[in-house]
Amino acid sequence: MKLLEDRIREDGTVLPGDVLKVDNFLNHQIDPDLMSAIGEEFARLFADAGVTKVLTVESSGIAPALMTGLQLHVPVIFARKHRSLTLTDNLYTATVYSYTKQVNNDISVDKRFISPDDKVLIIDDFLANGQAVQGLMEIAKAANVDIAGVGVVIEKSFQKGHQMVLDAGLHLEALASVASLENNQVTFMSDQQ
Amino acid sequence: MKLLEDRIREDGTVLPGDVLKVDNFLNHQIDPDLMSAIGEEFARLFADAGVTKVLTVESSGIAPALMTGLQLHVPVIFARKHRSLTLTDNLYTATVYSYTKQVNNDISVDKRFISPDDKVLIIDDFLANGQAVQGLMEIAKAANVDIAGVGVVIEKSFQKGHQMVLDAGLHLEALASVASLENNQVTFMSDQQ
Repeated sequence: MKLLEDRIREDGTVLPGDVLKVDNFLNHQIDPDLMSAIGEEFARLFADAGVTKVLTVESSGIAPALMTGLQLHVPVIFARKHRSLTLTDNLYTATVYSYTKQVNNDISVDKRFISPDDKVLIIDDFLANGQAVQGLMEIAKAANVDIAGVGVVIEKSFQKGHQMVLDAGLHLEALASVASLENNQVTFMSDQQ
Repeated sequence: MKLLEDRIREDGTVLPGDVLKVDNFLNHQIDPDLMSAIGEEFARLFADAGVTKVLTVESSGIAPALMTGLQLHVPVIFARKHRSLTLTDNLYTATVYSYTKQVNNDISVDKRFISPDDKVLIIDDFLANGQAVQGLMEIAKAANVDIAGVGVVIEKSFQKGHQMVLDAGLHLEALASVASLENNQVTFMSDQQ
């Protein structure tokens, strides 16, 4: 998605440790018009996938998921993060390790909101090591629902999340696919083609 | 906002302790079309207020804030919650007590995203005791910016947040104003007029 790649080049910052900081338009301050275009693009890419619900995890996934749900006219569910859960009877849960914060969080979705005839589209802002998306895939599996696909705004294709999603046999769409952050420089997959 | 009041009557649940549960369309599962209508209504109500940024706090505030920012074509900033902060030099912070979880959280906004010539519209999903909105007001004050107003999707007007915002001399708009939850029954201010 050229609009997004241009914005990342213009406003993104590369930090040590392969960190791409985009908090000025994506995940702390949000550009709503860009986010709306992102939702339109996901809706176009998954138009024929039979999506009945969009599934994401708080907080940074909410904006792209909401804009996608708005275009597809289906409900959006965001999994909640907790330090750890004691009562889980009414919840589908998964444990997610955060490399950034180096802690385990449980994420959960109320069982009322996913039924076996749903087909969920998993949306998140970033795909790096894939922990959050894997947690959402586990929740979908626990709920016994089909996954229509996985859409991420930005992926770092050189980290293991990309392959993990493909290995699961899922349709993956990344609107910007970062091939490398070497020398503090963003190189997209599209630059190499 | 009649559409919202009708939905609360239909899908909301009243729990002991004056809790109004709306997690099936507002803050766990989200109805994007309803949320879009909510954003349009906030944009209409604050159209002449000179808003340059929408300010909210993760996670439940993000959806209504984003839809409002989309209509007003201004950036949306969501304050981040932390257990406690050690490095705060680059952040505006405030401490917020959660009555639901009975813990103190710090909330923060990166100083890069608010400048003195901004005029912020504070948006949140709920106004009850007003702790979150008060925290956002403190952040606006620390950043030395004007507040264009406060918009909340649902307020419980019988709790202290409502009066707190008015006492601060701010323009408050609640799209659904709950006057009472007695006898497990939702009574809106509009029912009493």
